[in-house]
Amino acid sequence: MTDRDWQQWMIAAGTRARAAARILARTPAEARRAGLRAAAAAIRDRADAILAANAADIARAEAAGLSGAMLDRLRLDPARLEGVAAGVEAVAGLDDPVGSVIDRRERPNGLDLTRVRVPVGVLGIIFESRPNVTADAGALAVMSGNAAILRGGSEAVETNRALYAALVAGLVDAGLPADAVQLVETTDRAAVGAMLAAAGLIDLIIPRGGKSLVARVQAEARVPVLAHLDGLNHTYLHAAADPAKAEALAINAKLRRTGVCGATETLLIDRAFPEPGRVLAALVDAGCEIRGDAEVQALDPRVVAVEDADWDTEYLDAVLSVGFVDGLDQAIAHVERHGSHHTDAIVTEDTAAAERFLAEVDSAIVMWNASTQFADGGEFGLGAEIGIATGRLHARGPVALEGLTTYKWQVRGTGQTRP
Amino acid sequence: MTDRDWQQWMIAAGTRARAAARILARTPAEARRAGLRAAAAAIRDRADAILAANAADIARAEAAGLSGAMLDRLRLDPARLEGVAAGVEAVAGLDDPVGSVIDRRERPNGLDLTRVRVPVGVLGIIFESRPNVTADAGALAVMSGNAAILRGGSEAVETNRALYAALVAGLVDAGLPADAVQLVETTDRAAVGAMLAAAGLIDLIIPRGGKSLVARVQAEARVPVLAHLDGLNHTYLHAAADPAKAEALAINAKLRRTGVCGATETLLIDRAFPEPGRVLAALVDAGCEIRGDAEVQALDPRVVAVEDADWDTEYLDAVLSVGFVDGLDQAIAHVERHGSHHTDAIVTEDTAAAERFLAEVDSAIVMWNASTQFADGGEFGLGAEIGIATGRLHARGPVALEGLTTYKWQVRGTGQTRP
Repeated sequence: MTDRDWQQWMIAAGTRARAAARILARTPAEARRAGLRAAAAAIRDRADAILAANAADIARAEAAGLSGAMLDRLRLDPARLEGVAAGVEAVAGLDDPVGSVIDRRERPNGLDLTRVRVPVGVLGIIFESRPNVTADAGALAVMSGNAAILRGGSEAVETNRALYAALVAGLVDAGLPADAVQLVETTDRAAVGAMLAAAGLIDLIIPRGGKSLVARVQAEARVPVLAHLDGLNHTYLHAAADPAKAEALAINAKLRRTGVCGATETLLIDRAFPEPGRVLAALVDAGCEIRGDAEVQALDPRVVAVEDADWDTEYLDAVLSVGFVDGLDQAIAHVERHGSHHTDAIVTEDTAAAERFLAEVDSAIVMWNASTQFADGGEFGLGAEIGIATGRLHARGPVALEGLTTYKWQVRGTGQTRP
Repeated sequence: MTDRDWQQWMIAAGTRARAAARILARTPAEARRAGLRAAAAAIRDRADAILAANAADIARAEAAGLSGAMLDRLRLDPARLEGVAAGVEAVAGLDDPVGSVIDRRERPNGLDLTRVRVPVGVLGIIFESRPNVTADAGALAVMSGNAAILRGGSEAVETNRALYAALVAGLVDAGLPADAVQLVETTDRAAVGAMLAAAGLIDLIIPRGGKSLVARVQAEARVPVLAHLDGLNHTYLHAAADPAKAEALAINAKLRRTGVCGATETLLIDRAFPEPGRVLAALVDAGCEIRGDAEVQALDPRVVAVEDADWDTEYLDAVLSVGFVDGLDQAIAHVERHGSHHTDAIVTEDTAAAERFLAEVDSAIVMWNASTQFADGGEFGLGAEIGIATGRLHARGPVALEGLTTYKWQVRGTGQTRP
């Protein structure tokens, strides 16, 4: 298909999605919940077909020489598939944001103004190899009253198709529109281009994947994007940090899971912090590679020399840049210069210092005496998240159902004319 | 200057703006208010210089053959200039959104999560001939804790420069950073291109002007845009509308001021509405041209034939498209097909019909028994507005101080690590 063909396809798909979105927006929460429960049941009913499709994707990926971690992300087994179905049911149990009143005011002329949450409309969700996103993202869209157009990774094309068929069969069984969720069943990258250009057809693009995907989306999109870029997160051990908490938090923030976006990548240690050697030794003993300058290397012979680029590197691995700073201002300046405005933490027993850090560090999530690994919608009590937004507008940090809504103003009068 | 030179200029201006934004974000409300009051005083002190600069712009515009309405928009006189100063003082008196708590929750593990409003950061505001925007937009930016880069229209270049000099002199007198508000003192359109491409330097672009400006911004911007497109607004006279209210609302919605974006452009009349002829006659008698099909023309010989394009035309004039519909569904379908999702109203005494209209019409502002001319931040009790957003994300409808903020998550712990 040519780019022009893809444009035509996008107009058709977008028009169907808009019609479905209008229906979903006025579908009561109970009907949306019922649709998702039916979708979960359909995923369970069709487990054999979905796992067979996944086996075909895995075989193709192995033949293409895909590596262990990528293969693992792609693979479904009965337990993981049950997790997918249970995840869809969990979304069905979340609080409904649609129709909730943000605020209400009565004007002196008697006009009654209410701001009420409404779905965004049509979401375009572009993701990579994990096939569970087909179900997760579709469920979050439907529960927030949005239609969605999904475009998954080419490695998972068979799995996505089978999971999607189950999801839609469930939605339709429960009386929801078949176009509530559409899947772009192609591996042609031009389809992504058509989605990114679909101003007026898609209201919000959400990329879920690695840096190159997000960068392409941000560079090309003519549609607003809710993007999660890197998590180049800092933990700062302040002069007044409790050494035991500092050690535990540094280890957890870096090493609990090194591949998640909430992992700490740089540890800043105040020169006045009493026990830097203890923290470094604990990290190295736990299997972490430490990169630091001569001052850091002097504390532990196992520290490797840091290079300039390290301060701007999201390792997503058991590697940590460590640097000394003189006081809060230098720490904040370092975070502002090198951070990605995702999640940054201070460890201190000094309330005033902590409050300055929380106020002045310009990140989506700022933490005091807590592990950056808590950066997660579930840990925040939001239920499933569609991602962690590092942009500044509409929604920041973990984005769950509320982040997939917007609002409108309802004005109720009794015949008022404006003087 | 070449495009490359403009990029370099943008990097320098954006870097200064970011530094100022960081200071403003932690400047207490009282200091921001004091800055704006000093700016208002400086505008009054420098009235002679500002009016002289305006006279130069007017002379140049007259020599270039500018028309009456455009010339009027450009012109300042002592009364208008006092209005500009008073407007800056009014912004200084608004509620401060920065630091207000959106919500707060404690997690079972003891983590205390607070969502708190923070400024967006650096605003890029691009506007056309009205020079008062220099002061209005600058004041709204400063009061919401944002830095701003302003780019005004070439016709008003001298006036903008003089107004801007007064504004900044006041801010600096009161101890605020000189780079809090910057003015792009050029008529070169390439400067706008550099602003639109300034991802990471400018956080939000706000165009204030006509359709061609907004369209260019939306087509080119690599930065999020808070745009106000047309106000192709509808008033729908339902079967159960009170005829006297219907007449008064139709006349006010269309004719109170025809050039504002909240003006009604299309009147939909239900075939079951009892007195369509009375409403049409009142409109024509009040000086409105009515465009309608044969069925409408049959009601009043003064009705002109409507053409297809009329349903999609924002007249901004004493002209009104009038059409008959059969019931609420047809009315909503017409609004969804032809409207611009700005402001749409139903007139009815039937609560159920009104609530369906308020729920189902997908516009930023939906009204029941009220004139669409109330679409205005001041009328909504928000104070001065920077515009009326017709997009779907971040902010919809009248955008005032709150719409110029975003939020961050502050997490307060006592050493929690994630299991």
